[in-house]
Amino acid sequence: MSITQNLTISISSSSSSFLSPSSFNSRSQVSLPVKSVSICKCVATPQEAETAYKTRVSRNENLGKLQAGYLFPEIARRRSAHLLKYPDAKIISLGIGDTTEPIPEVITSALAKKSHALSTLEGYSGYGAEQGEKPLRSAIASTFYPDLGIEDDDIFVSDGAKCDISRLQIVFGSNVKMAVQDPSYPAYVDSSVIMGQTGLYQKDVQKFANIEYMRCNPENGFFPDLSSLSRPDIIFFCSPNNPTGAAATREQLVQLVQFAKDNGSIIVYDSAYAMYISGDNPRSIFEIPGAKEVAIETSSFSKYAGFTGVRLGWTVIPKQLLFSDGFPVAKDFNRIVCTCFNGASNISQAGGLACLSPEGLKAMRGVIGFYKENTNIIVDTFDSLGFKVYGGKSAPYVWVHFPGQNSWDVFSEILEKTHVVTTPGSGFGPGGEGFVRVSAFGHRENVLEACRRFKQLYK
Amino acid sequence: MSITQNLTISISSSSSSFLSPSSFNSRSQVSLPVKSVSICKCVATPQEAETAYKTRVSRNENLGKLQAGYLFPEIARRRSAHLLKYPDAKIISLGIGDTTEPIPEVITSALAKKSHALSTLEGYSGYGAEQGEKPLRSAIASTFYPDLGIEDDDIFVSDGAKCDISRLQIVFGSNVKMAVQDPSYPAYVDSSVIMGQTGLYQKDVQKFANIEYMRCNPENGFFPDLSSLSRPDIIFFCSPNNPTGAAATREQLVQLVQFAKDNGSIIVYDSAYAMYISGDNPRSIFEIPGAKEVAIETSSFSKYAGFTGVRLGWTVIPKQLLFSDGFPVAKDFNRIVCTCFNGASNISQAGGLACLSPEGLKAMRGVIGFYKENTNIIVDTFDSLGFKVYGGKSAPYVWVHFPGQNSWDVFSEILEKTHVVTTPGSGFGPGGEGFVRVSAFGHRENVLEACRRFKQLYK
Repeated sequence: MSITQNLTISISSSSSSFLSPSSFNSRSQVSLPVKSVSICKCVATPQEAETAYKTRVSRNENLGKLQAGYLFPEIARRRSAHLLKYPDAKIISLGIGDTTEPIPEVITSALAKKSHALSTLEGYSGYGAEQGEKPLRSAIASTFYPDLGIEDDDIFVSDGAKCDISRLQIVFGSNVKMAVQDPSYPAYVDSSVIMGQTGLYQKDVQKFANIEYMRCNPENGFFPDLSSLSRPDIIFFCSPNNPTGAAATREQLVQLVQFAKDNGSIIVYDSAYAMYISGDNPRSIFEIPGAKEVAIETSSFSKYAGFTGVRLGWTVIPKQLLFSDGFPVAKDFNRIVCTCFNGASNISQAGGLACLSPEGLKAMRGVIGFYKENTNIIVDTFDSLGFKVYGGKSAPYVWVHFPGQNSWDVFSEILEKTHVVTTPGSGFGPGGEGFVRVSAFGHRENVLEACRRFKQLYK
Repeated sequence: MSITQNLTISISSSSSSFLSPSSFNSRSQVSLPVKSVSICKCVATPQEAETAYKTRVSRNENLGKLQAGYLFPEIARRRSAHLLKYPDAKIISLGIGDTTEPIPEVITSALAKKSHALSTLEGYSGYGAEQGEKPLRSAIASTFYPDLGIEDDDIFVSDGAKCDISRLQIVFGSNVKMAVQDPSYPAYVDSSVIMGQTGLYQKDVQKFANIEYMRCNPENGFFPDLSSLSRPDIIFFCSPNNPTGAAATREQLVQLVQFAKDNGSIIVYDSAYAMYISGDNPRSIFEIPGAKEVAIETSSFSKYAGFTGVRLGWTVIPKQLLFSDGFPVAKDFNRIVCTCFNGASNISQAGGLACLSPEGLKAMRGVIGFYKENTNIIVDTFDSLGFKVYGGKSAPYVWVHFPGQNSWDVFSEILEKTHVVTTPGSGFGPGGEGFVRVSAFGHRENVLEACRRFKQLYK
């Protein structure tokens, strides 16, 4: 790592610069997956900018409204900067919710089998249906939505929930007003800004204009006060929530569906962590009567089967869900999927089908169980240190309260003193201020080591 | 296939309904890959619509401007309808440009190896860099852009060129004016409509308002008269062109780059068929001096390695390309890639790396050579029947002239009388009227059989 690169990192504070895995591993014994190299050189220096040719195309003003970098690249950048400062540090990452455990063999065998089959005349397939392969759509419907009236063709297979969130925003366009849990996964707000649904960022309140931030905190049991909300068109709701780990109860979801119905709003329900739910809270918004007329559900194999890199998710749009003019939302989503997407990889889809076989389901539950044990270790650690801890029970995220403190300060102190990467709560919205999210995705020995260091720091 | 399904197909004329591969194969001896089942039920019937609950969310008006279905699902629909009419027909598809030949084993072995590795601690990887894995970005830069000054971090790996076209449109936003070759790949125009860049569709001229249609026809050697063009912000330019098969010469591309420079426009250069070029026409826009300041290039492994289902492409955005305020286009694209996408499948990327090994390149050239032989057979056939035939030499598409005839009529006549699916030229824009595109993607025996039937029909 040369000084020049070091300087590049320090001047391009919102770029997504990462160290290379190789240079990182050579300095670190705790080997963890790291994002690949990309020292961003795409910011012109002042001298260059003066003389450089510029096109006459105006920059999209919506992109100019976005705040700094997307949260997780920013954390990766700070991690890289930390490693430059402490080249011998054994960094442990409990920051970005990236799965670490190998994919069960019953699933990888199916991925490999499909890969091999592509070299044969019988096994080769080219363009698949943009909406996903029929057997996979069918398996998703019957596995996750049995007896809920969700039909195979209500399922759209995708390359991940994050990608589908943006495709949904393209469907909605710029003339809608959205509401979002505060705190929540930053892709909801950022994709809304990109589509031009919001006004400018208001620094004083750390919110975008024209977005309803639904505060979720310990005081309201992490369920928003809907009565105080102006009517939104679109309600993004994630349960179990990322980052708070709170899983909404049936009563809460009944309230939410009723609110949507009363207001003619559409709920985009993100259930990417539903398989982590303990107890009998609903796994799907479609368990709530009437939800099919007001809700979309998006989910993913990422956190169930370790498919964060393999890329496979799905979105459910019931044909009962209609725009105000009676036009089916699914029909517009289908058009977007056909025009802006070409389906998930056929190999990933073969893997998804294997996930939903009896053996695959058992294997996925094993991986989820492992991460839930990690969660317990982290919860117990912070509990024992006297912190108020939320989440964890129904989600792979532990939401630790540091009352009165600035999240980024806490993040920095933890990183500086323990070499553990967490995620600052305020990165998920102003309602996350004073919290830090600790991810339970990690090898067991790393989670244990991180907890030892937390105990050292906060003893 | 029940009567109910038959009826559903006939009433939902713009839906993407396909027959199942199994029901198709049982009726057909010429077995070809077919899109999966999806009998669309998402159009409410009039009775339902009256009583159904509707949300108060307005439909995105831009989506309402789109014309019927996306071209290729529409063709698949007509194919399905044909099969209902002639259940015993041996349909041959030379319509949608879908690869048919197995992927060479040197490449599928790499796909399978990566799949297996994901079940091991050492081989597992989760989220990768959204921009693509470093070794693949590097291999793309050195294979396709040697000595052209394109750096590894100018390359963004993706799940396909079509997906990147939409992501580019998200970067540009709604306040740009685009120009497009007429005829051309329909995703350019449709994604522009979706992003709100255009006005309404003008039925009389079959064009959208606020798009410059650059007519490309035999009279101008399939290169547009740039002098007659109002200044566009964005110029979509595909070479070798889909559907005409015309590959632009160096002189033409020098003209194009100069035009962009004079007008401060950005060229989005689609080189998805560049490896099919015969002779010494440029394979990349970046072979033209100065192009890095005005051009983006998007490309794909789909038509080189048969990756239409595996999903892997890339987009090159040189850091020299700047918006009018000096802001680098690559930096906004990077933000979109990080926020709306999570990288291509790590398995597909391993396959892409294998494609670019010496053995992989040789194998890809073998597949391309095979399709080029198909092309020759098709060209010779129409030549011998006295048709004016274009394309073919540098592209897997043959562009056949039927002067004075309606493309859809020709399409229908060919389908009706030979059971061969082609693509009507007008589906690519009004400039395609009077032409039909015949794809060279097909098993040899099917191409030969299709040509026999053409000879029968037009003898």
